[in-house]
Parts: sequence; C-alpha cells; structure tokens
Amino acid sequence: MIQFDVDLGARSYPIHIGQHVIEPFLADAISGDTALVVTDEHVAPLFLNKVLSQLEHLKTDSVVLPAGEQHKNLTTLTTIFDRLLERRFDRHTTLIALGGGVVGDMTGFAAACYQRGVDFIQIPTTLLSQVDSSVGGKTGVNHPLGKNMIGAFHQPQCVLIDTDSLCSLPPREYKAGMAEVIKYGLINDRPFFDWLVTHHDALMEGNLNLLAEAIERSCRNKAKIVAKDERESGVRALLNLGHTFGHAIEAGLGYGKWLHGEAVAAGMSMAAHFSQQLGLLDKEAVQQVDALLEHTGLPRLPPAGMSTQVFLSLMSADKKARRGVINLILLKNIGEAFVCSDYPSAELELFLDRYLSSQ
Amino acid sequence: MIQFDVDLGARSYPIHIGQHVIEPFLADAISGDTALVVTDEHVAPLFLNKVLSQLEHLKTDSVVLPAGEQHKNLTTLTTIFDRLLERRFDRHTTLIALGGGVVGDMTGFAAACYQRGVDFIQIPTTLLSQVDSSVGGKTGVNHPLGKNMIGAFHQPQCVLIDTDSLCSLPPREYKAGMAEVIKYGLINDRPFFDWLVTHHDALMEGNLNLLAEAIERSCRNKAKIVAKDERESGVRALLNLGHTFGHAIEAGLGYGKWLHGEAVAAGMSMAAHFSQQLGLLDKEAVQQVDALLEHTGLPRLPPAGMSTQVFLSLMSADKKARRGVINLILLKNIGEAFVCSDYPSAELELFLDRYLSSQ
Repeated sequence: MIQFDVDLGARSYPIHIGQHVIEPFLADAISGDTALVVTDEHVAPLFLNKVLSQLEHLKTDSVVLPAGEQHKNLTTLTTIFDRLLERRFDRHTTLIALGGGVVGDMTGFAAACYQRGVDFIQIPTTLLSQVDSSVGGKTGVNHPLGKNMIGAFHQPQCVLIDTDSLCSLPPREYKAGMAEVIKYGLINDRPFFDWLVTHHDALMEGNLNLLAEAIERSCRNKAKIVAKDERESGVRALLNLGHTFGHAIEAGLGYGKWLHGEAVAAGMSMAAHFSQQLGLLDKEAVQQVDALLEHTGLPRLPPAGMSTQVFLSLMSADKKARRGVINLILLKNIGEAFVCSDYPSAELELFLDRYLSSQ
Repeated sequence: MIQFDVDLGARSYPIHIGQHVIEPFLADAISGDTALVVTDEHVAPLFLNKVLSQLEHLKTDSVVLPAGEQHKNLTTLTTIFDRLLERRFDRHTTLIALGGGVVGDMTGFAAACYQRGVDFIQIPTTLLSQVDSSVGGKTGVNHPLGKNMIGAFHQPQCVLIDTDSLCSLPPREYKAGMAEVIKYGLINDRPFFDWLVTHHDALMEGNLNLLAEAIERSCRNKAKIVAKDERESGVRALLNLGHTFGHAIEAGLGYGKWLHGEAVAAGMSMAAHFSQQLGLLDKEAVQQVDALLEHTGLPRLPPAGMSTQVFLSLMSADKKARRGVINLILLKNIGEAFVCSDYPSAELELFLDRYLSSQ
C-alpha cells in the first residue's frame, strides 16, 4: 500500500493507493457521527454496500445521482442538498464521493457549500478521477455556457484510491483515464513519459502493481504542483494541458458525448501540433505524443464537424482566458510545458483551419 | 467620513461609512476591467445609475433581481451566473452587491462560486445590511428546509456604506435594521446599549451623524468578533443572538413575510425571556430589552399560530444544532451573551409553551 500527503499546511491530507484501502482508512477519516455517500447509478451496484458496511457505527444515507457529465449541474447538485436537509445532517457531517470525476466534483462542491463548508472524502473509482480530479480540491458543476464555471476550492480530508475498482471499469473509461496519466509525463516528467511508453502494454492489460505505480507517480506530480499553487494563480495552470481545446470539444459536442479524457487527449495532440507550428516543439516529439495517444486507443483529432469559429468562441469563454486572450498550455519538449499567452492570435486561427481540415 | 479595517490577514478589507462614499472609493477597489452590478427591483431605480456612472471606464453590466427573501435561492442565483457567462466576464471580474442583505448574500455567494471565486464589493443600502450582513464574509442562499443552508465564507474587497441611502429606506425596514444594531449592545457592549437608549429618538428621526456612529459601533463590534473567528468555530456564534428563534420564525411563516430584523427582534426577546426562565438573567434586564425593542416598533412576540412543535422542529434544523441539541445564544446580562448547549431540553419546550400562549 502507498501513502503520501498533499502538502497544503492546515489543509494537508493523505492519499492512500492500493488494493483494499477503504476498510482500514475510511471510518477513521470521519470526525462526526453522520455521513452521506454520494455515488451514481453505475457505481452504486458495484461499491455502495462495501462503503456503507464500513460506516455502520454512524447515521448514514446515500444519494445515487444519474451518471454522466450532462448531469453535472446545479439541478443535480440540489438533490444532494435536499437529502442532507431532509435527514437534518448538521455541519459536522462528512460527504463521501464514491465514483468518477463527475461525482467527485459535485460532491466536493456540495461539501464546500453545505452550511458553508463540511468535510468530504474522495473515493475515486475511475482511473481518470484517481489520477486527476480527486486530488487538489477543485470542485464544481458545469453551466450550459462553460465547463466547471461554478465551483469552489475545497480540499478533502483524504483520498482513498482502491485499485481493485479499476477491474470493473469499462475499457473506454480506462483509456480515457490514461490520457490524464500521459499528461503528467508531458507537463514536467519526461522519465515518466518514457516509463509509460515502456510499460504501455502491461498497463493496458491491467497489471495492478504497475497501475498503482502509474497512479502514484501521477498523483505525486499533481500534489507537488497543487502544493505550490493551490488556487491556480500560477504554475497550477500547467495541469490544464490539453484542457482548453478539450473543454471546447466537450462543450461543442454537448457534455457526455465524449469522455473528458478523450477530449483532453485530442486537446493534448492539438497543443503539441500548435506548439510545432509556432516552432516551439520538434516534429519527432509531436510524433511521440501522437503515437502514445494512438497506441492507447485515444482520439488525436477533434470530432468532425466542429469549426474553427466554434473552437475560438468556446475557448475564449474558458476560465483561463483573460481580456479575450486565450491562454494555452504549450510544449517546448516532452516534459516541458509552459503557459503561453503571447502567440499571435491569427496563428491559432490558422492552426485550427489546417488541423480541422486534416480530418 | 469613517474608515476602519476588518482584520483578517491577507483577506483584510476596509469599511467606509458616511455620505458620498461611493464616488471616491468604488473605482479604485476594482482591479480588473469588467464589473457586474447586482441589485434588486426596489434599489435599481434609486441607486443603480449612480453606481454605474462611477464605472464608465470599465465593461459593465447589471442584473436586477426580484426583491425579497423568498427569492434568495439557487434559481435566482443562476440568473447571475447566466449574465456573467453570456457577457464572458472572466475570473478577473468584480461583482458589486448593491442592495440589502438578500442582494449582498446572493452576490457574495455568486462571487465565491463563479469560476471558483472572483472579487466582490458590498454597497449595502439598508440599515440591516450595513450593520450586519455586508461585513464578515458570510454569503449564501436559502433552502426550503432552512435559511442560509447553502453558502460560502467569501470576504469582499471593501464595504461602502453610504448613509444617504437610508433616507429612502421604508420605515419598516429601518426599524428592522435597528434590531441588529441593538443586538451588538446586547452581545458584548453595554455602553452601546445604553447609548442607543439615550439617543433612540434622534436615531429614529434619522439624524445622520448619530446614525453613522451607530453603524460604526455596530460594524466595529462585528469586525472584532469576525477577526477572532472568521469561520464560526467559536465566538462568532454570539452574532446569532436571536437568530435561532428568528430563523424558525422566518422559515415557519415562509420567507419574506416578516423581515429578517423583525424575526431577530422577537428572537432576542425570546432569548432574553428564556435566559430569565433558566435563572441566568434578571427580570429588570429583560424588561429593558423588551422596552427598547417595543420603543423601536419591533415585534417582541413571534407571529400567532406557530406552535412549540413547529419551533422545535425548525430550530433543530438550524446550522448551530449538533446531534439534535439546539445551541442557543443566551444572556447573563445586557452586554454579556454566551453560547449555551447544556440547558435541559424540557425547559425549552416548557418555555415555548408558556411564551407562545402569552400572546
């Protein structure tokens, strides 16, 4: 079993990774005498009873949300508040997010807002949420005009990553999670990128030891960045590699059509190609990025039918945009991402025209 | 003009009190190049243009909410997010709350959540919001099952209290605001309570100098308590004197029937009488409390028709309740409030039976 801390002063918390991490750590992480487990209709049949069985000494309840990004909105969030208030759970209650990124983001945001802030615990059950959204305290819901536009920074009490949960993960979701794993290699960890290339086949076959290592290296990378910049005023923006293009894909298609990781994969490829067009990244590196994404079975091109104008319009609504300038995370090399805001805007338009017509 | 700071380290901010405080301070408090003014249908005709005229160098817009506590909910909040996103206001935008407590609480909560947190400025236009809700960073909306159940702690950049705005305040709202002013005397400032008794008539006639002093003394009292306990883990709970009974009245009647200050006035009288029943407060002090409330034209008794059971049920859903125990702010003397959780629960039931039947 692996354990390390996200170092955020008074808001520090441990991440536990391995098989069977729920039983030894869940109950101890709860300080009050009530807990609400929030999960979704796909995850509930698999893991809800396992979690509730650890909480029999408490007053508990559970909320089963409809599954999918298209339900990550204020209306669904309200059902969590309704249950908390119907059950009179007070400000000493703990919310437990059992599921993927959508469940984690909504449960975390509900915990941030309920009675102006209660505890919560992340039990991410998808690879994507294990290596990304469960760590770092970003919570929120979508708005029809933009992803994660309404939310809060709210750190969990702990993150429990049970690698067994990946055995039941549909292959498409597993691949989508690998997109975020690859992201950490691209941002600032070339050795990890090379390790992923080397161990690709074993990872895709579900080798749990290698997977635990991939998750650990991803989470440690993320924890290091979050510790430096909890509220994203600087270096944390690097974690958005592939996300500005990716969010535009998700919003343009309608949430839930492509998985988040799929959109991020195409977004990272686009970031690499745009970096190449600007003369920042050499062709060989771009090919290495594309090869690993394709080998993993991830999309490299955005969905057909999205125009340059749709991309530009959605990207300028991105949270990282400022005064109409679309800040992008670009690559100087594999393992060397940086925030770029001073590229010529005509270059981006030109890039999109070319790249979208290459489909 | 009066100025002093709410001392919260990196989140400290100034409060400006007096006539004409908007013009010299508003524009300087905005760091970005966009601002959204949020107000309501009553306040907009009176002050919106005055505020917008100070912001002509920025890209601005305004949202006019329906007036009243019954609209302080997630649905109304959504209209603020809609406008921000339609106008593509980015995370460097500033929200300006122009109005009473409802507008301030909702605007502050919208600012806390929009893109996970943007700046906001409080321009409270009612006496109640000037002395209470605009200071201290509590923001939020109501849920049908409880008041302010969904919210955040989010401190403003500054608070601009223009005493001129009180000239147009309806007398009923003015009186309701006085309830929160009186509260500060009761909590921990006996000299202020006595000062209020002495200057009562001049204050009720709208003497602006005395009013500015009453607002200053109220805000300083609140700022001192908030500085000690920003997130209400201790002494800040004292600010809820009268509010546990008061919130039950508001929820029991349906939000918007009684003004918040009216419910708090009855709640403070109830807290005084219950303190007397427990042998904590002498009869003379209770009479002084009731005399000042009545003299101000505030209700001392809860509305007819609310039963003991309705009170107990709503009070046990209060945010300060823990494990079913209703924590109350009670009085040992005028100017000596304390948090009480160890009274016999049968005493509270007995008190409510008696007090409600005394109507």
